[in-house]
Amino acid sequence: MRIGFIGTGTMGLPMLNNLLKKGYQVCAYDLASAALEAAQKAGAERAGSAAEAASAGDLVITMLPSSGNVEKAYLGPGGIIERAKEGTLLIDMSTIDPGTSQRLAARLKERRLRFLDAPVSGAVGRAIEGTLTIMVGGEAADFREAREVLSAMGRNIIHVGPVGSGEVAKLCNNLVAGAAMIAVCEAFRLGEGFGVDAKILTEVIAHSSGATWVMEHGHPVPGINPNAASSRAYAAGFMTDLMAKDVGLAVAAAREKRIPVFLAPTAAQLYRLASAYGFGRKDFSSLYEFLKPAAPDAPV
Amino acid sequence: MRIGFIGTGTMGLPMLNNLLKKGYQVCAYDLASAALEAAQKAGAERAGSAAEAASAGDLVITMLPSSGNVEKAYLGPGGIIERAKEGTLLIDMSTIDPGTSQRLAARLKERRLRFLDAPVSGAVGRAIEGTLTIMVGGEAADFREAREVLSAMGRNIIHVGPVGSGEVAKLCNNLVAGAAMIAVCEAFRLGEGFGVDAKILTEVIAHSSGATWVMEHGHPVPGINPNAASSRAYAAGFMTDLMAKDVGLAVAAAREKRIPVFLAPTAAQLYRLASAYGFGRKDFSSLYEFLKPAAPDAPV
Amino acid sequence: MRIGFIGTGTMGLPMLNNLLKKGYQVCAYDLASAALEAAQKAGAERAGSAAEAASAGDLVITMLPSSGNVEKAYLGPGGIIERAKEGTLLIDMSTIDPGTSQRLAARLKERRLRFLDAPVSGAVGRAIEGTLTIMVGGEAADFREAREVLSAMGRNIIHVGPVGSGEVAKLCNNLVAGAAMIAVCEAFRLGEGFGVDAKILTEVIAHSSGATWVMEHGHPVPGINPNAASSRAYAAGFMTDLMAKDVGLAVAAAREKRIPVFLAPTAAQLYRLASAYGFGRKDFSSLYEFLKPAAPDAPV
Amino acid sequence: MRIGFIGTGTMGLPMLNNLLKKGYQVCAYDLASAALEAAQKAGAERAGSAAEAASAGDLVITMLPSSGNVEKAYLGPGGIIERAKEGTLLIDMSTIDPGTSQRLAARLKERRLRFLDAPVSGAVGRAIEGTLTIMVGGEAADFREAREVLSAMGRNIIHVGPVGSGEVAKLCNNLVAGAAMIAVCEAFRLGEGFGVDAKILTEVIAHSSGATWVMEHGHPVPGINPNAASSRAYAAGFMTDLMAKDVGLAVAAAREKRIPVFLAPTAAQLYRLASAYGFGRKDFSSLYEFLKPAAPDAPV
Repeated sequence: MRIGFIGTGTMGLPMLNNLLKKGYQVCAYDLASAALEAAQKAGAERAGSAAEAASAGDLVITMLPSSGNVEKAYLGPGGIIERAKEGTLLIDMSTIDPGTSQRLAARLKERRLRFLDAPVSGAVGRAIEGTLTIMVGGEAADFREAREVLSAMGRNIIHVGPVGSGEVAKLCNNLVAGAAMIAVCEAFRLGEGFGVDAKILTEVIAHSSGATWVMEHGHPVPGINPNAASSRAYAAGFMTDLMAKDVGLAVAAAREKRIPVFLAPTAAQLYRLASAYGFGRKDFSSLYEFLKPAAPDAPV
Repeated sequence: MRIGFIGTGTMGLPMLNNLLKKGYQVCAYDLASAALEAAQKAGAERAGSAAEAASAGDLVITMLPSSGNVEKAYLGPGGIIERAKEGTLLIDMSTIDPGTSQRLAARLKERRLRFLDAPVSGAVGRAIEGTLTIMVGGEAADFREAREVLSAMGRNIIHVGPVGSGEVAKLCNNLVAGAAMIAVCEAFRLGEGFGVDAKILTEVIAHSSGATWVMEHGHPVPGINPNAASSRAYAAGFMTDLMAKDVGLAVAAAREKRIPVFLAPTAAQLYRLASAYGFGRKDFSSLYEFLKPAAPDAPV
Repeated sequence: MRIGFIGTGTMGLPMLNNLLKKGYQVCAYDLASAALEAAQKAGAERAGSAAEAASAGDLVITMLPSSGNVEKAYLGPGGIIERAKEGTLLIDMSTIDPGTSQRLAARLKERRLRFLDAPVSGAVGRAIEGTLTIMVGGEAADFREAREVLSAMGRNIIHVGPVGSGEVAKLCNNLVAGAAMIAVCEAFRLGEGFGVDAKILTEVIAHSSGATWVMEHGHPVPGINPNAASSRAYAAGFMTDLMAKDVGLAVAAAREKRIPVFLAPTAAQLYRLASAYGFGRKDFSSLYEFLKPAAPDAPV
Repeated sequence: MRIGFIGTGTMGLPMLNNLLKKGYQVCAYDLASAALEAAQKAGAERAGSAAEAASAGDLVITMLPSSGNVEKAYLGPGGIIERAKEGTLLIDMSTIDPGTSQRLAARLKERRLRFLDAPVSGAVGRAIEGTLTIMVGGEAADFREAREVLSAMGRNIIHVGPVGSGEVAKLCNNLVAGAAMIAVCEAFRLGEGFGVDAKILTEVIAHSSGATWVMEHGHPVPGINPNAASSRAYAAGFMTDLMAKDVGLAVAAAREKRIPVFLAPTAAQLYRLASAYGFGRKDFSSLYEFLKPAAPDAPV
C-alpha cells in the first residue's frame, strides 16, 4: 500500500519512519524543505505539494501543527482536495479543534472523500518507538480500514466515536491533566509556604481524594519522583507550550458549543504566560517553578 | 481518662459516641442546646461552658464549624484558655485555616497548654464507623500521646509535621480534589457537546494522564459509576458547601503566605456560586449539573 | 448607487432601511426567508443567493451573526466570491474575530476584491435611528469611499487601522466594559453583604479610581440610576448573550496571537453561564442578580 | 487635644506631621524604633507601647500595615485595650478587612471604647500634602467628633455607614480599579498583537462603554498619557503590591459573607504573581508589561 504523508516535522518524521519500517511506500510533503529532505533521506518519495502527495496515496496521513495548517493542506491552493482520488481515506493525526475536523469532513464528503481524525498522545519518544496512543473519530468501517496502518505508529488505538471525537477525547484528557497539574503545583507551593514536608504531603494526597496521575507520574516538586521531569530540571516530557495549545483548543471547542468552562481557560492562560517567562519548552510540571511566591516583604 | 469535648454537632456527636464506646468518660459542651442534649443522651456529662468542659478533661477535643468558632471557644469569654489545667493537651479537629491554628498554638503555649491540629477527612458515615482519616500537626511527643484517643475515632492517623500541618494537608488534598472534579466536569460537558459517549471518554482518560481519583470514585456523570453520588441524584458524599469552604480556606492560607494560586480561587467561587443555585447540600460532583451549556440559540 | 446587502436580521433590517431612506437601491439576501421577505417589504430587491446579491451591487454589505456565517457567505457555495465584480468593495459589518477578517481579506484580494471590516456598536435602537458607532479596518482609500454609505447607518465612523482593526477595537472595548461590569457587580454585592448603602458606595467610587462608564450609565443595582437597564428589570440594553459572544471572541483573538488574558475568559464564561440560568436576553448588568450569595447557612 | 498615634511608618509619619502642624500634641508609638525616632524628631512624644500611647491620648489613631498588626496593637499584650481611657474614640486608618474592624469594634465596645474605621486613599504624596481621601465607618456622632482631626490629614472625608463600611468602600473601589486596569492591559495587548495603534484604540474606548478612570488617568501603555506612571517607567503611583493586598482583602471579605467573586481573586493573584516577577514596587499599571505574549514560535 502506498501512503501520502503530509507534515514530516518533529513528530511526523518518526511516524513516517515506522510506516517505512513496516514496508509501506510513502510519498511525503512538507512546506519546510529541510523537513521534506529528512523524509526523503529516510526513504520516502518527495512530492511537490500536498495535492501531489495525496494523489499518490491509497491512504493519506496528515500531521500538522495547527488548525490553520490543516485547513490549508486540505482546502488551500495545492491542497489535498484538489487531487485526492475519489473514495480515498484521509487521516488527520494533528491536534486541532474538533469543530474544524467536523467542518473539514463535511467538505471532503461532498467530494466523496473519507476522513478520520486521529490525534496521538505520547511525545517524540513514543513516536520513535511506535507506541503512541491514537484516538480516532469517524465511521466504524473507516476505522477498521485504518487500523493496520495506524498500528505501525501506535500501540493503543481507540475508536472514540463520530468525526471529531478523537480530538475531543485528546483535548478532554489534556484539559484534566493540565488543570490537575496546576492544582498540584498550587497545593505543594502552599505546603511549602507552611513548612510541610513535600514527601509526607505526597503520601497523604496519594492515598486520598486528591490522587492524580500527574502527581504520581509527573510530580512537579524536584526530588520526590526521580523519574519525573522535575527531577531532571523539567526537561520535557510534555512541553508547557503544547499544554497551552491543547487546553487552549479545549476552550475554543467549548466556546463553539456554548459550554461554560472556568478552570480550562485559566489553566491555558497560565501555561501561556509561563511560556512568556521562559518555561515554554520545559515540561508542563515546571508551572511549579513559575508559580513562585510574591516578595516576602509584600504587604498582605 | 476523661475527655473534654466541645462541639457536638453533626460530625462531633458520632465522634464523641465512639469515645464513649471505647470507655472514655466525656464532658461535653456545645453552644446549641439541642446538640448538647444529644451528647448528654449519648452518655456524656454536660458542661455549662467550653471552659468548664476543658477544666474537666485530662485531654480536650474541639470539633467546630469555622475559624471564628474555634477562636471563640479557645480564647473568648468562657473559653478553654480560662480554665484548662496547665499542661493539658488540646486537640482541635475542626477544619480551619492553618494560620489560625498556629496563632492559637502560640497563645496557648504562653499559658503552658499544648495544642495539636487534627482535622479529619471522611464524612458522617465514616465518623459513625470510626474510620476517619486524621491528619495531625504538632509536636511528635504530643502526637504519640494523642494517638490512642484519636484511634477511637479514626483509622488512618498521620503525623504530618509541626502545628498547622494537619490543616495544610487536608486543605491541599481538597484543593486538588476540588479543582480536579471541576476539570472533569468541564471535560465531560465538552464531550457531551460533541456527542462523545461518556463511557468511552471515561475509558480513554482513565488510562491516560488525566486519570484522577475523583473521576474513578466520584464520576460526575450519572450512570457511569453506579457507586458514585451522581448515580443517586448527587446525594452527598462530600457536600458542595464543604468543598467551597475547604478550597476557600486554602485560598485564604495562600494569601497569608503570598503564594499565587489561580485554580483554587476559581474553583472555590464556582462551588460557592453553585451553592447559591441550590447545589450546596448535594455532592460536589453536582458541579457537572451546575455547569450546563448556555441557551442553544445564544450567538457564538 | 446599488448596494448588495446580505444578512437582513434584527440588526441588518433597520440598517438596510436607512440605506433605502437615503435613496440607495438595495438588493438583499438572507438564508432565512422570513428575514428576506421583510427586506423586500421594506423596498429592497430580493436575490436568490449571496452571490446574486453581491453581483448586483456596486458595493456589498454583510451583517451576519457569526464568523462561520461570514465565511460561508463569502467563500461557500453560492457565496459572494463567486460572482462579485472585480474591484468591488465588500464591507463586513458583523462582529467576528479579527483573524477571520484578515484571512478573508487575503483570499478576496487574490480575486481583486476589496474588503473592510466595519462592526458596529449600539443596539437595535441606534440601528433604527441611524446613529450607530462604526469601527472600520482596511485601506484608507477604501474607508474614504465607504464613508458616505456608512453615514447612512451610523453617526460616529472611525478608521481604526488595517483590516481587522475595526473588529479589534470593538472587541477590546467590550472586553473592558464586560470585565468592568462584573467587577462593579462584585463590588456592590460585597457592599451589600456588609450592609453598605449602594448610593453612598456609588458616590465614593464615582469620585475615585474605580470610576467607569458602566457604573455611571449602566449601574447594575436597581434604583440607583433610573435610566439604567437594572431599573427596568434588566430589559436590554446590551444582552448578556452578546457580551458573552464578544468577550469570547476577544479571548479567541488573543489565543491566535499568543497573548495571555485572564479576566477576559473568566468574564466570558460568567456571561455564558448566566445565559444558561436565564439571563441571556437580559441586559449584561443582570450579572449582579446572577452573582447572588451562597446559602446563609453555608459553612465558611 | 492630645492624640495617641500608633504606626509611624511610610504613610503614618506624614499624617502625624500634619497633625503636629495643626497644633495637636501627639504621643507616638511604633514597633520599629527607627520609625518611632522619626516621629520623635518630627515633634511627637515617644511612648513605650501602644497601650501607653493610647492612654496618653484623648483620641487615638492607628495606621498599621495589616489586620494582624491591628489586632495585636489593640488586643495583644501591651495593646490599646489595656490602658485606653473609658469612652476614648479610637480611629483605625489602616487598610484591613472589614470583618476584623467589626469584630474589633465589638470587643472594644465591651470595654466602653468607641471605634471608627477610616482607611485612606491617595499615596504618600497626598499624605504629605494632607489631601487624602478618608472613608469612615462607625457611629454618626463619632464621625462628627473625628471630623476635625481627620481634616488635618485629608481633604475629602466621607461617612460611609456603620463600622466596617469605610474599609468596604475602599476595598470595593480598589477591586473595580484593580480589575479594570487588568482588563485595559489585556485589551491593549490584544490591540498590539493585531497591530492596532494604541492612541486610536484609546480614543475609541474613551468614547465608548469601556471608558474607565484607570485608562484615562493611569494608561498602562507608555507614551499615551505623559502624566501616567507608565510614562515614567511605571514609578508608583499605586504599587502593584498594595493592589494585590487590597484586592486580596476584598476576596477575603467576600468569603466571609459567602459572596461569589470571580474577577477579584483572579486579579489579586495576577498582581501577586507580578510581584514575584519584580513588579511589586512598580505602579500597578505595570501589569501591562507583566502580561507579555508567549514565545512567537509557541504552537497555537
